[in-house]
Amino acid sequence: MKFLKLKTKPLDMETGRNIVVLHEDDAEELGHFAGDRVKLSTPKTKVVAIANATRRMVQQGELGTFVEVTESFGLKPGDLVEVSLAPRPKSIAAIKKKMDGQQLSSDEIGAIVKDIAAENLTVTEMTAFVVAEHIKGMTTSEIVALTQHMVRTGDKLDLEVKPVLDVHSIGGVPGNKYALIVVPTVAAAGLTIPKTSSRAITSGAGTADVMEVLANVTFSLDEIKRIVRKVGGILAWGGAVRLAPADDVIIRTERMLGVDPRCQLLASVMAKKLAVGADRILIDIPAGPGAKVEHMEDARSLAHDFIDLGHKLNIQAEAAVTYGGQPVGYAVGPALEAREALETLRGNGPGSLIEKATSLAGIMLELGGASATGLGRQTAMELLKSGKAYQKMREIIEAQGGNPDIKPDDIPIGDKRETIPAPRSGYVTQIYNKRINAIVRAAGAPRGKGAGLRILLKEGRKIGKGEPLLEIYAEHETKLGEALRMAKQNPPVKIEGMLLEKMTGRPRIG
Amino acid sequence: MKFLKLKTKPLDMETGRNIVVLHEDDAEELGHFAGDRVKLSTPKTKVVAIANATRRMVQQGELGTFVEVTESFGLKPGDLVEVSLAPRPKSIAAIKKKMDGQQLSSDEIGAIVKDIAAENLTVTEMTAFVVAEHIKGMTTSEIVALTQHMVRTGDKLDLEVKPVLDVHSIGGVPGNKYALIVVPTVAAAGLTIPKTSSRAITSGAGTADVMEVLANVTFSLDEIKRIVRKVGGILAWGGAVRLAPADDVIIRTERMLGVDPRCQLLASVMAKKLAVGADRILIDIPAGPGAKVEHMEDARSLAHDFIDLGHKLNIQAEAAVTYGGQPVGYAVGPALEAREALETLRGNGPGSLIEKATSLAGIMLELGGASATGLGRQTAMELLKSGKAYQKMREIIEAQGGNPDIKPDDIPIGDKRETIPAPRSGYVTQIYNKRINAIVRAAGAPRGKGAGLRILLKEGRKIGKGEPLLEIYAEHETKLGEALRMAKQNPPVKIEGMLLEKMTGRPRIG
Repeated sequence: MKFLKLKTKPLDMETGRNIVVLHEDDAEELGHFAGDRVKLSTPKTKVVAIANATRRMVQQGELGTFVEVTESFGLKPGDLVEVSLAPRPKSIAAIKKKMDGQQLSSDEIGAIVKDIAAENLTVTEMTAFVVAEHIKGMTTSEIVALTQHMVRTGDKLDLEVKPVLDVHSIGGVPGNKYALIVVPTVAAAGLTIPKTSSRAITSGAGTADVMEVLANVTFSLDEIKRIVRKVGGILAWGGAVRLAPADDVIIRTERMLGVDPRCQLLASVMAKKLAVGADRILIDIPAGPGAKVEHMEDARSLAHDFIDLGHKLNIQAEAAVTYGGQPVGYAVGPALEAREALETLRGNGPGSLIEKATSLAGIMLELGGASATGLGRQTAMELLKSGKAYQKMREIIEAQGGNPDIKPDDIPIGDKRETIPAPRSGYVTQIYNKRINAIVRAAGAPRGKGAGLRILLKEGRKIGKGEPLLEIYAEHETKLGEALRMAKQNPPVKIEGMLLEKMTGRPRIG
Repeated sequence: MKFLKLKTKPLDMETGRNIVVLHEDDAEELGHFAGDRVKLSTPKTKVVAIANATRRMVQQGELGTFVEVTESFGLKPGDLVEVSLAPRPKSIAAIKKKMDGQQLSSDEIGAIVKDIAAENLTVTEMTAFVVAEHIKGMTTSEIVALTQHMVRTGDKLDLEVKPVLDVHSIGGVPGNKYALIVVPTVAAAGLTIPKTSSRAITSGAGTADVMEVLANVTFSLDEIKRIVRKVGGILAWGGAVRLAPADDVIIRTERMLGVDPRCQLLASVMAKKLAVGADRILIDIPAGPGAKVEHMEDARSLAHDFIDLGHKLNIQAEAAVTYGGQPVGYAVGPALEAREALETLRGNGPGSLIEKATSLAGIMLELGGASATGLGRQTAMELLKSGKAYQKMREIIEAQGGNPDIKPDDIPIGDKRETIPAPRSGYVTQIYNKRINAIVRAAGAPRGKGAGLRILLKEGRKIGKGEPLLEIYAEHETKLGEALRMAKQNPPVKIEGMLLEKMTGRPRIG
């Protein structure tokens, strides 16, 4: 095997994967072409990296190493590295096969997942996989394999207790801060619930974004184990631990494209649950106009997919279809949602949030054996009303390094604000979820914690022209301006009179 | 509009598009998220760039500018630049629409093509477009719009003569060096043929790769005009001029993915022809097992697509379906093909190449009015046999800065060689194009000009066990080894006895 000895030239730039830069003449000498990988060897270790050829940046005889390679390899300037061609990963042929609509074997999916988890794919290859998933989809057996390989290529949480409960909402509904009520309620009943969440992909705030307002969400697996064993529950960010790490890489690409393929959704959710050792899980599927799932029959079909997939993976899965046609509660955006969740736990929450959270918690209490069948909802409501759920949330916040005494009003929210008045009198007949999400993201959420909006009236309520309808919050004037422009172009709330249409008829002739 | 004044810090790296790096704190201050664009303004000019946020590479208050931005903007270290958020390009919504299988309007396609030509899309967005094209395809009206916008966003060649002829082979067949015979033959008849070609995408050598062995192929539009007006024809690399430049960007992504979507193929070919001012064109569609098009009916359908598209674009297009089931001639790879083309022009070429080249040239002579209908092929053969085509090729080579006196044996070919013997006696019953391409690419072609292979026997010929069957050429031992390994794993030539199957029958009972 032909190789060159090149001198390390560290480049002070992060690329997210193992990438090196060769001088074009060295690349030609090696017989290297765009997209080819190289094997790097020192007496101590070996690694495969994606190589780019250039006439700048490095001289002939030099190997430009970006931060990931320099650090994981422990290279110093001038260190000699043996560089030889590496074969193209097998996963690339499998990605093309999926692009062409063919079914992949478990081994092919395993090759893709392994390379994704190891960040061995180029941005082009990674994108091709996600777009092919989005357009072509996967069969159940492919999804089972995808789930299993995602779990296999990551770390696992072993809590040494049974049962382990978990809950996941497929999201898409603004203001969906249910987990901040459900997790402490379930844990308050003595059950174990190690909830990890992602950050928002297309919405204004994911559970991790909201919880991060109240406490730290970035923990190692050992820390998660310690916290859960101490207080029974946690609300952690899944991206900080290597639970099914391929999923986190895939989500980055999904996020840049603004897509969320169904096969990947199923596999991602199940992989994260399997990796934390959950054996009894509840999937919340919000359904309604403007939700990720619009129609009941689709929600039912997705619910069955989850239950079937759980069955094939030895997880007892249940699913709940909840109303997702408008935001849950009134607040949307990390800090505003954290305030609302805290108010709810303290006995002063909006009806839609209380109803959703206690319904889901009720199913989980029954699933975990902490309540008799049919009594789960009632038990959950008692845990909430008695303050036991709030007390448990205080324990969780404290265990996660937050301030358990924090009051809703202590939470800082964006100081660039504007109230939007109702453009006419009438009834709120529809709230458009996607427009709400777009406005909240334009306002700077989820990274801007204080950005978001509050809806002052939900569907069915009456409002007079000029009365306050929405409040928008941002941390930057630019973002507030963008959010307001967006709200003006695509009003997120529809107001109509009771008389929806006036028919002026003429007598028909003939 | 919120903006920051940042100090330029040039970064010595090419990225292929306008990219800048912000410090994470500045990005947050601006309200910038991954994938967002920024507008850069100095008193002199404005530009939009893709921005990445980082904690390394730049300090707060600095703007890291990669080579493209630094140079096109004329920035020096420390120059102050106003940085503000720019809206996401409209093309991104259009790309998502295509991913979801919807038809795009001409304006939407125009937005995509404009951003591609300006290199305004991220690698992720660019890949999503190509994969969506590959999977979802386009309607005729979308392809017309794609073609027109690709022409509109580039430069045009105006030769100030009529007619302007051109020929294009959709490729996929190894050894397809026909253009090096056809162009001088057509020009020798006094016609104008400004042929531009791309380099190889999935094969071992494109026309530009082969011609580059004999002469320069990289010219400005003015140089192309001067050469064509002087000698009537040219064989130039299309990538060096901005003729439908969006196509070149798209091809880079296609190349990394190893795909070639049909809608893009149609639009790309037509856009390049329109941009050189061609009004009478011939499309060669090689068909046969292992060619890009396998079946006659598909070839006919593609031919009709080209003719229809030509009609809608005011080009008189004809199409020829040629046999593409095995390589054209015996040589595959840039230098080996250049040798074979030159031998053919000098009166000593393989039958398949002569037949294909004179057939195509004959159609073009009729199309250009240089031959009576039905006599084109004969005229082409006379131009070839009389040495007039060779003389014209010498003029073209000289006009393109090459050595017109070069002999086939003067052309250097790879000195790492190995002959593969026939593994058994019998007849060559099939040559696998894709395996041939894979071997030639493994051997280092097309960048390694001397890499390639020679088939010593074509389909239907008899061979004895151990007799030489193939010669493989490479410039590097590594590459020769890879090519040999590949040839062993997937033999590119099938040899069978005349008796294909022996039936041992027992008398049927009953």
